[in-house]
Formats: sequence, C-alpha cells, structure tokens
Amino acid sequence: KAHASGTQRLDIRGIYPPIATPFTEKEEVDYQKLNANLEKYAKIPFRGLVVQGSNGEYPYLTVDERVEVVRRVRQALPREKLVVAGSGCESTMATVQMSEQMAGAGADAVLVVTPCFYRGRMDSRALVHHYTKVADSSPVPVVLYSVPGNTGLDLPVDAVVTLSQHPNIVGLKDSGGDITRIALIIHKTSSEDFQVLAGSAGFLMAAYSVGAVGGVCALANVLGRQVCQLEELCVSGQWEAAKALQYRLIEPNAAVTRKFGVAALKQAMEWFGFHGGVCRSPLQPLSEAEAKALRQDFSSNGWL
Amino acid sequence: KAHASGTQRLDIRGIYPPIATPFTEKEEVDYQKLNANLEKYAKIPFRGLVVQGSNGEYPYLTVDERVEVVRRVRQALPREKLVVAGSGCESTMATVQMSEQMAGAGADAVLVVTPCFYRGRMDSRALVHHYTKVADSSPVPVVLYSVPGNTGLDLPVDAVVTLSQHPNIVGLKDSGGDITRIALIIHKTSSEDFQVLAGSAGFLMAAYSVGAVGGVCALANVLGRQVCQLEELCVSGQWEAAKALQYRLIEPNAAVTRKFGVAALKQAMEWFGFHGGVCRSPLQPLSEAEAKALRQDFSSNGWL
Amino acid sequence: KAHASGTQRLDIRGIYPPIATPFTEKEEVDYQKLNANLEKYAKIPFRGLVVQGSNGEYPYLTVDERVEVVRRVRQALPREKLVVAGSGCESTMATVQMSEQMAGAGADAVLVVTPCFYRGRMDSRALVHHYTKVADSSPVPVVLYSVPGNTGLDLPVDAVVTLSQHPNIVGLKDSGGDITRIALIIHKTSSEDFQVLAGSAGFLMAAYSVGAVGGVCALANVLGRQVCQLEELCVSGQWEAAKALQYRLIEPNAAVTRKFGVAALKQAMEWFGFHGGVCRSPLQPLSEAEAKALRQDFSSNGWL
Amino acid sequence: KAHASGTQRLDIRGIYPPIATPFTEKEEVDYQKLNANLEKYAKIPFRGLVVQGSNGEYPYLTVDERVEVVRRVRQALPREKLVVAGSGCESTMATVQMSEQMAGAGADAVLVVTPCFYRGRMDSRALVHHYTKVADSSPVPVVLYSVPGNTGLDLPVDAVVTLSQHPNIVGLKDSGGDITRIALIIHKTSSEDFQVLAGSAGFLMAAYSVGAVGGVCALANVLGRQVCQLEELCVSGQWEAAKALQYRLIEPNAAVTRKFGVAALKQAMEWFGFHGGVCRSPLQPLSEAEAKALRQDFSSNGWL
Repeated sequence: KAHASGTQRLDIRGIYPPIATPFTEKEEVDYQKLNANLEKYAKIPFRGLVVQGSNGEYPYLTVDERVEVVRRVRQALPREKLVVAGSGCESTMATVQMSEQMAGAGADAVLVVTPCFYRGRMDSRALVHHYTKVADSSPVPVVLYSVPGNTGLDLPVDAVVTLSQHPNIVGLKDSGGDITRIALIIHKTSSEDFQVLAGSAGFLMAAYSVGAVGGVCALANVLGRQVCQLEELCVSGQWEAAKALQYRLIEPNAAVTRKFGVAALKQAMEWFGFHGGVCRSPLQPLSEAEAKALRQDFSSNGWL
Repeated sequence: KAHASGTQRLDIRGIYPPIATPFTEKEEVDYQKLNANLEKYAKIPFRGLVVQGSNGEYPYLTVDERVEVVRRVRQALPREKLVVAGSGCESTMATVQMSEQMAGAGADAVLVVTPCFYRGRMDSRALVHHYTKVADSSPVPVVLYSVPGNTGLDLPVDAVVTLSQHPNIVGLKDSGGDITRIALIIHKTSSEDFQVLAGSAGFLMAAYSVGAVGGVCALANVLGRQVCQLEELCVSGQWEAAKALQYRLIEPNAAVTRKFGVAALKQAMEWFGFHGGVCRSPLQPLSEAEAKALRQDFSSNGWL
Repeated sequence: KAHASGTQRLDIRGIYPPIATPFTEKEEVDYQKLNANLEKYAKIPFRGLVVQGSNGEYPYLTVDERVEVVRRVRQALPREKLVVAGSGCESTMATVQMSEQMAGAGADAVLVVTPCFYRGRMDSRALVHHYTKVADSSPVPVVLYSVPGNTGLDLPVDAVVTLSQHPNIVGLKDSGGDITRIALIIHKTSSEDFQVLAGSAGFLMAAYSVGAVGGVCALANVLGRQVCQLEELCVSGQWEAAKALQYRLIEPNAAVTRKFGVAALKQAMEWFGFHGGVCRSPLQPLSEAEAKALRQDFSSNGWL
Repeated sequence: KAHASGTQRLDIRGIYPPIATPFTEKEEVDYQKLNANLEKYAKIPFRGLVVQGSNGEYPYLTVDERVEVVRRVRQALPREKLVVAGSGCESTMATVQMSEQMAGAGADAVLVVTPCFYRGRMDSRALVHHYTKVADSSPVPVVLYSVPGNTGLDLPVDAVVTLSQHPNIVGLKDSGGDITRIALIIHKTSSEDFQVLAGSAGFLMAAYSVGAVGGVCALANVLGRQVCQLEELCVSGQWEAAKALQYRLIEPNAAVTRKFGVAALKQAMEWFGFHGGVCRSPLQPLSEAEAKALRQDFSSNGWL
C-alpha cells in the first residue's frame, strides 16, 4: 500500500484539459500529433493534463493503448505538470490493475469514472466498495469522477462523503453541472482535505464561487489560456471580470461537449492550431450543418 | 393594452417567498392563518411575495380561490411589497383571463408557468406564441416561469431570448438549477432589461455570481431573514461569508422542496413560528420517518 | 353512495374513441361539428365513447365546458353506447366534484387520470387515498387512467391491485404501452372483476393477447371501423389476421399520438370525413413538413 | 469474408438463456461450474445459448476471458445447439476484432450490443456505420442487440430497417420491452428474412403474438423448461394456456433482471439446482431483504 495516510494530500488545484487522443486516418493513435499538442499545452499555465477523461475516447482504446498514451504524455510533459490518468473500468478488478499500470507509466494520480453498465445496481454500497478497493491498492492518489451525461449515473453525495475520508482519495471531478450538489459536497467534505474540480468550463466560475478549486475542461483543449484566465480571475476575486469572460465560454463549451461531442472538440482544435483530426468509429465526423453551427458558437462569442 | 412599452420595466430585484396556502382541517383556504403569516413576512426585508408558485398548491385551487387569495394578500401586505401572482393555466385563453383577473385583484406582476400537459408539443414555437399572447393582453408585467421538476419541461433558451424582447415581459424565474443555462440566459438577454430570479435557495449564491438579481425561494417561507441575508452578502460582494451561509441552506432547502415537497415546507413553517398546516389531498402528510429526516436537515445545519 | 357493491360491475369491454373536441376558428367549442362526428361514430360498433381523455384537450376546457360537452355527447349518442367521461383534476376535492357533475350530466362512468403536478409525492399511498375518496363518492363507476407520456407518472402496480378491490372501481385504461406491466396487472387483479383497456391502438392486439378486454384508442377517431375489426379478430381468436391488421395501424397511430399529437389527430380526422379543425392554443397547427409526414404514415400503410 | 449473401440466412428461432458466468470466491471464472450448468442446459430444448449477453457480466471480463468462455461453451455443448456470442465493444475496431475472435472460438453467430458511452452521438448514422462494418467483416452472422435498460439507448427503428437488408445481419434481440416498437420492426422488415427475438421472458408471449420467433431470456437460466414450454404453447397457437403460464413468469423474470439484477439471477439459479455464485465486483450480493423479496417473487407464483 503506497498511499499517503497521515501525510499531506496531493494538491490538485488548477485547470486541466482532458486531452483528446489524435488518430491517424487509419484510426491508429497518432503519437506525433499528440506530442505536438503537448508542446503547446506545456506553455499554458495548466496545473496538468487529464489523460483519458471522456474526451480522450478512452472507451475506444485498448488496455495497452490506454497505458501507452499515459506513458508518452508523462515523457513529453514538463515534470511540474501533473498527469492525471483515467483508469476507470467496469469491474473493480480491472480498475485496480489499470490504476497500477497507469501509476507505473508515470501518472501522478488516477481519475476513476463510476462503473455504469449495471447502473440500476450501482448504489452507494456498490460504489463505496468499488472505490475503496481501488484506492486501497492504487500506488497514486485517486480522484473520483462523476459524469452522468455519459454514464447515466451520479455518484451519490453520501458515497462521496464516505469516500472523502479515505487517505488515498484526494478529490472529485464532477461533470454533472448541478451547482447545488457541488456546493453540498464541498460543504459536507469540508472537514477533510477534499478537493472538487468542475468537470466543465460551462459552470467553472459558479463552481469556484461555491468552493471548487479547479476544473477539468474540454474547452481548455481549444481555449486553454482563456480558461486559465478565468481561473485566475476567480481565484483573485475579480468576479465581475470573471463573469464577463465566463459568459463568452458557455456556448463554445456546450458546442464541444454536450451538443456535438468529441468530433466537435477535435474540429475546434484544428481551428485554434492544435491537432484534432478524426474520431475513432463509431463516432462520426460532424455534418456540414453541425460544423457551421459549431463555428457560429465560437464566432458569436468573439473567438473566431 | 396596458403594458409599459417605451418606459422603464418594473424592477423585480430581491427575495420572494413563494408563499404556502394554509388550509383548515377541512381543506378550506384559511385566510386567518394566511394573514398571520403575512404580518410576519411584512417585517422581513422581502422585495415582495409570490402568490401561487408551485409551493402555493395552485393546481389544487379553484379559479375563484386563486384570485381571492391574491386579493387578500394584496390587501394585507404593505404597498411597497410586490405581489407577484401565479396566473399560469394550461390553455392560452385561460392564462390570459387569469392574468387579467389577478391584475384586477391587485397583483403587481404575474408569474406564468409553462403549460406542460402536452409537453411533447410545447416547443419554442408554441411557447413563444403562448407567452406573447399572454403578455400582449396582461395589464401588468409578466415573469416567465420554468420549473422542470414539476412540469417536465424547460422553457428553451431561444424562446426566453425571443420573449425577453417583449416590452411586457420583465424577467424569468428559473427553478431548474442548471447554472450554466441560467448564466447563458443572462448573457444572451443582456441587451434587454431582463431580470432573472433563481427559483430556489439551493443555488441562490451561484445564481447571483453569474448575474441573477434575486430569488423566489420556498425556504424563505421558513428562514426568510437568512435568505435575505444571503442576498445582502451577495449583492455587497461578501462572497466568503455568502458561501458559508449558502452551505447551511442547501439541505434545509432540498428538504422542503425536491426531497419531501410542500408538506415538508408546511411542517417546517410550524417549527419556525408560521402557520403551515395540512396540504390539500392528494398531497399526504409526512410520515414520521420523513418528519424526522426533515428535522435533521435543519438541525444538522444549525437551524434547530 | 351509489356504487354497485355486491352487484355486477359495469361491463366496459370494447373499443372507445377518446373523442377530440372540435373548436371554431375562435377556439370556442363547436357543438355542431361535435354532433356531426357523433352521428358518424354512432354507426361504428364502438362500445362507447371516452369524452375528455387526453385527446379531448380536457386540460384546455373550463369546468363548465367539460361538463357541458359530456351532457351534449350523452344527448346525441344512442343509449346503448357508454359515455365514459374524463373527470380527473389535480386535487381530490375537485375530482370528486367533477365526477359528480359528470354523472349528473349523464356519464355512465368516469375516467380518472392520475394527478401529476407534484409527481415526486404521488406515491402509492397518495394515489390510493385519492382514488378511494373519488370512488367512494362517485355516483357512477370509476375507471383508473395511467398515461405516463403526459403525466410523467405511472400508477404503480401495487396501487392498482389495492384499488381493484374497491367495488366502485371497474377497470384501468393504461396508455403506457408496457405490455409486461399490463399483463402483470391483469394477473394480479384476476380474482377481482377488474377490466383493463389498452390506451392505444399501437399495442391493442398484444394487450388482447395477455387479457385486456378493450381499448381506448385515439386512432379510432379516424379509423374506427378498422380498430373495431381488430377487436373482433382478437376476440374471435383470428390471430394471424389480427397481426396483419395490427401492423398497418402502428404508424398511423403513432403519428396521431406521440409523434405529432392532437393537431395531427384532428388533421387526419379531416382526411377521413370527420370534423377535426384547430386545437386550442398553445397547441399549434402542424407544420407543412409534419402534415406531409403524417399523410405518409397513413398512405404507406394503405389507408390513404 | 464468409457471410451468406445470396443463400439462406441462419435460422435462429427458439429460446436461449443468456448464460451467467460463474466465478470462484476469488472472482476467477469457474469453468468447472460453468460445465456443470452446461450439462444441465443441454437437456433442455433450448435452440442454443447466448454467451455474454448482459447477464454474463461481459463488461467485467477481459478480452481473453470473453473469448475463452465462448470456446469452452462451444466445446461442452452438443453441436446442434447454437452458440451466440456477445462480441460488442465500444469501438467499431474492437467489435470487429472480437467478432472474429469469437467466430474463431466456435461461435455460430455474434450478438452485438449498441455502443453507448457517447450515447448523445449514437444516432442512426453512427450505428448503421458501426454495424455495417462489423457485419461486413464478421465470419459468422450478426444479431443486433438493443438493451436500453443498460445502455440508455434504443437502436432506432429506421437503423434496424436499413441494417436488416445486410446479408450478414440475421436478426435483432430487443430487450426494451416496447411491444409496439417490436411489432413495427417486424412489420417493416417483413420483406427481409429478418428474425426478432424477445430479450426477456416478461413479454415473450406478447412478442410471439406480434411475430417474434424466439427469446433470449435471463429467466431461462433458472426456469428453462418453463420458458421453452411457453415457446411451445405460443408456436402451436395455444394462447389461453400460454397466457396462464406467461402470467406466472413475469414477477420471477422482473426479479432476476430489472429489479435485483445479476446477483438475483445467480441466487435463483442456486435454488433451482444450477451454479450461480457470486458476481464480480462492483456488483454486490443481495441484501437479506432483497433475497427474501426475490424468493417471494418465485414462491407467490408457485415455483418455490
């Protein structure tokens, strides 16, 4: 057991892009393009990168690819940037193994999505059991990850509160966008050193206002400096300026997430000088009408 | 047509309890108890009262009762407090008539919930048509009202934006709690003099942080001074103190709304010196276990 | 109390169109057109008519209109046809009164939809209480009515089973289309003389196969003889012929219900020689594209 | 490419248990217990077995385990029984490879669940593309698989109709239980030699009544002979006897599927002489109250 009981927990405050995984036209992982993106990301004041959040198409990668991408990112990224690796699988056993492999590949922490296929049975009892097993054995700290838009499942507040007491669980990425829930979680875990990250740039400022300490934001793949600027405004209490910037990020953020998905994120990355490229099948490219609407969501907010 | 085109819109900033309707044991409206509550509410720095929001059990009142309750509230309430009356019905025709009747009974504005029975057909076209007809004919300003938890329907953002340009529509009460949506609506209606009210105390501070100007909060029936204090902290930019207070209001608020409903609101009112009493059937009294859990949600946050 | 305890329950077997309410261009109830429809319906082997199911736009009628329409239908319809009147309101008190008024206007039975505005609190306890009160006082038999597509609420199976034992509750109209649920309800109420009606022509044959005894079918407003023919084929055990006919009714049925709603039902009525006309606002007329798709759903199945 | 274009499609009519995967106490696949179950299943008039439907906990198996279980089942099972292997993965690429591996391990057909993680983007275009690629390359026929209870996604009717024309796609397992949809699919694919299997014993008889040709029924792991008897009654047109039997299967079926999940299925298997055992984590054992309720669902229907 390698976790940090009794000692200071890993500080995960800050902004993270959940990086996209570039593919070649043949749908192979394109490590060259990945590296080119990483070079650019290294110059943006991110706290680190999330490798294989939902925007990384992790469900489409093999076990080996998942680990290899983490290894490459760690190699390419300056040491002071955190690598938070998505290690969630459906079974506890697989998640335990994946977490170990990712730690071995250099991850500083693992991000563990709620298992969801049997969602009708994924109650607090099952999820506390799952995360406890994973955190007990993980060589690096665990970040909980609730993303109901994809999983159809919210990690229950009472389960988060219980899990916040585990010495190897350092925080939660909450992508559901229910600000009341986020505030409640922060309130009820305040006696622990538990850190909540907003899972989207759409409600980043509101999350900061109620006590979140950072964000994992798909939009940061595209408008990374701007998301970091929003962080800075919030952290320094410049709420009026923060609000004005937050407003302009909502539609671009919705467009690259809920509205049009990963294909839109990758399309927008191309417009802003990053390598996006195709998604793995069955994700399809945007239709012409979708690409136009996507562009409009950026241009009408002054970004294009 | 009596609306205020060309002139200043009605200023609706501030906190409103959506007041409960007290009933006698025989389920008649208890105007005596209502008046006793109003006397107490008059001493709290509310901007006004919402009469017949969802917490007023308006779907259980007859047409005549709905108008009469508004009349009595207006008579009892000091003139400087606004009376915002819920006039929404399923048909446009009935909503038009009800709005006129409520204006006649002294309402300063009407709050119009989305019609929802045929929700599959209540798209932007239908809803813009509905609200335009109502606002065209209403003698007093109209406040839009989106409460998906009860109606199963969100008033679409594009419909809100279109309707914000109507001279007799002054704002929106949004009870959905999607802070990203609320911020987007404020952003996209910023060229109009359009005012957004949070529909719940659970996300009141977050709503203020993104530009809302007030709240219609069930919890204000119980903890009215505290909700007004939260308003004051937000408006004066005391965000840290606001956050600490906001935290303590989330669970009590959830308990008297989503979790246990109007019966819980009325039970809690009794504990805090107001008249709550029974709900109209088919709403049932709380079970003993529910009442206990309700009490716990107040006491664990230091209110009881 | 007029109910039939100890005696034979009202036999409600057969097919019922839940009739549409024709309006003039000014959205007044058009009794002349209603009568013209009734004359035609009298010649079709319906068991009776449902007046003010969801397709009758009952939430858009005033209390007086609801009663008056029932009175006119009873006057116009041959005595041997049943008039089943929708008397459901949100409050128990209003439903009790409406049921009495409809019985007074000549209804042979009342159809009582689940109250739904506070759906989070409409559990079995609340609904059993509601229906028991209504059935206790209703001068005519009560038919339960579960229509989750509109109400967002299924009347729970255990509540149906409890209520099936009430001497003045004779059956259930189930519009949800969950055939497993329908079969289970029939199974668990088999010791009572409890009759289940399919709430749609889309699953009428399947419902007969598991023991339903009739149907309240929007499509019967348009293709009444055909729906009655399907009944006849099912009742007489001609399942292969039934299947062939059932197939051809699914798309037309979906088009006039879930897909395009009451406006489509009224449009299709016009094509087949009945008076449909406009809906009350906020229901909107079909767009041209919708009308074309509607027509296609009839013509591709050989009906136009 | 081995598919059967121009020739007769594989006949898949009949009943299949989607077999559970027994595990040891250490959560390893228990091939000995699997074989013991297979011996018993071989004596029941099943058409074949589904290996790694949702009840086989396939999301919890590694790639190698998934293939190995198929191989062992094929070895143990009499040649005349079909082995239908669940080969669905999230990516098209992985599904193609898994289908090939399962065919190599002896599967007679593959059952391909809809990918669902990015369900907001899994429209007809994406799904038709996915299944076409898989069917183009699969050495054995493909059966489509729609299970919205787990995936949150219905394979759209128009996609099924398009895919039914593919020579290597022979049918659909539909577990959603929407009998109107099932009938419509059968109607709209009737010009193809396309076979629809009910995905549950709860609506098996209703599915037969509208033209389904078999069922993949979790309950057949427990009450296999009875499910086959229901098939026989339906196929031979003994609808009254079928109905009586169908009724008694609904609650046991719901209990081992939607209500209590795979842990209940495995518990019930133990009661009826099969090896069930534990589930892989994070699926938890039944609580005592759940086990009691499960038993009641069998005993109240006369099976225990």
